[in-house]
Amino acid sequence: MLKEKLYIIKIGGNVINSPSLLDKFLDDFAAIQGKKLLVHGGGKILEELAVKLEVAQQMVNGRRITDAATLDLALMVYGGLINKKITASLQKRHCNAIGLSGADMNLVKAQRRPAGEIDFGLVGDVSAGSVNADAIAALLEIGAVPVFCALSHDGQGQILNTNADSMTAALAAGLSGLFETELHYCFEKNGVLLDPAEEDSVIDIIHVSEWPQLLSAQVISAGMIPKLETAFQAVQKGAGRVIIGHASHINENIQSEKKRGTCLVA
Amino acid sequence: MLKEKLYIIKIGGNVINSPSLLDKFLDDFAAIQGKKLLVHGGGKILEELAVKLEVAQQMVNGRRITDAATLDLALMVYGGLINKKITASLQKRHCNAIGLSGADMNLVKAQRRPAGEIDFGLVGDVSAGSVNADAIAALLEIGAVPVFCALSHDGQGQILNTNADSMTAALAAGLSGLFETELHYCFEKNGVLLDPAEEDSVIDIIHVSEWPQLLSAQVISAGMIPKLETAFQAVQKGAGRVIIGHASHINENIQSEKKRGTCLVA
Repeated sequence: MLKEKLYIIKIGGNVINSPSLLDKFLDDFAAIQGKKLLVHGGGKILEELAVKLEVAQQMVNGRRITDAATLDLALMVYGGLINKKITASLQKRHCNAIGLSGADMNLVKAQRRPAGEIDFGLVGDVSAGSVNADAIAALLEIGAVPVFCALSHDGQGQILNTNADSMTAALAAGLSGLFETELHYCFEKNGVLLDPAEEDSVIDIIHVSEWPQLLSAQVISAGMIPKLETAFQAVQKGAGRVIIGHASHINENIQSEKKRGTCLVA
Repeated sequence: MLKEKLYIIKIGGNVINSPSLLDKFLDDFAAIQGKKLLVHGGGKILEELAVKLEVAQQMVNGRRITDAATLDLALMVYGGLINKKITASLQKRHCNAIGLSGADMNLVKAQRRPAGEIDFGLVGDVSAGSVNADAIAALLEIGAVPVFCALSHDGQGQILNTNADSMTAALAAGLSGLFETELHYCFEKNGVLLDPAEEDSVIDIIHVSEWPQLLSAQVISAGMIPKLETAFQAVQKGAGRVIIGHASHINENIQSEKKRGTCLVA
């Protein structure tokens, strides 16, 4: 049976931080026909709130260590402030958004990351198996457009902070049994760049088989590597292709077969 | 046709502020059979955050004036911190909670209160007509248990702060066309008291016709009057009976015909 298409779109923190980029993106997202869902990152707002409230932040390899006070900030900023503002903004655009975390309807249940050399604290790791695909399908069926913040839960009452790229990849993989998923990572660059200073140096397409070679050639900037690894995992778990591109190219990338940005394929 | 029963339950800020009271209440709420929804107030957490972030708060007749900075606090505390923690806590109890504001799925669309003698700012007034009963029914139908914070929206992208008692009454009245609604206001007292210092002085029943007389006799404490007026409006709009009682009596009040607390009836 032909599966229905589902667009899974992630916007990063730098899109959220730019009112003009966010506004244009929300216009474009609202205009997408068919089934869709959005995942949003956090942006600088959590950092700013942490400074004001004197909650010390510790990052290891670009990942936040989440103690109880920092989790409260994440609940406030990701789960409340950003999520509900995006939801209301989409409603204004006649897009029937519903703001969600992974705890809502048990939609995304994570494994708390075991404390190894580093204890990341209240952080959840997610995979395709974390996703309650039937419940998300039921929400889509009644006309809701899910807007996820990157918070999951452990099923034991504990919310867990989750990387937004990983959350998106897990959703794409977990929903690929029910839908033909197409995953778009939208950010403030034109795609995966060979030269980070040169927006024209976009790599058009990366096959999963080329990835180890690209990695060892050290042509991919360090910050992009976790995003790409996560995305490739989604591709390998059945998420269809992944497009990494500029937030303001989303409509073009959805409507036309020729993609701007970087396509990751199996 | 016989309408299905829907329990609409509101917990106030003093229940949220007490971990033991909240824990017991969530056990009891999770145990309620049949269709149900929860509305929660805010408690002291917003006040504490306002002090820490130096956002000056102004109250008029017990109602908060909501400027843009205060609305952000409400989004963070009501929409994020409290709402998502309650949702995760209910999921632990195998209650399929979904945390919601009025913006989600356009569930509660308010009128922004016009600036009169006092400008309350970003505050929304709600009535039975504000409620998207079909969408709430669709959520209940797919097995979700709505958990509302008291935030509504204007449909133009603006979230509005809303009195939690009014939000609950609007939901009860707005859903009474589809369901036989039974409304429970749960707080930290045994009911409407004749003597606020005496927990045994509960008024068992108040008929809507007796209300003006009780009001003029000045036997009802000032703080209870807006709650009761809101509740009576819900009764008159078809919300069925309203029970005002102690949070820890909720199971008893749902299961037995004899109610502890105060019953408001038409």
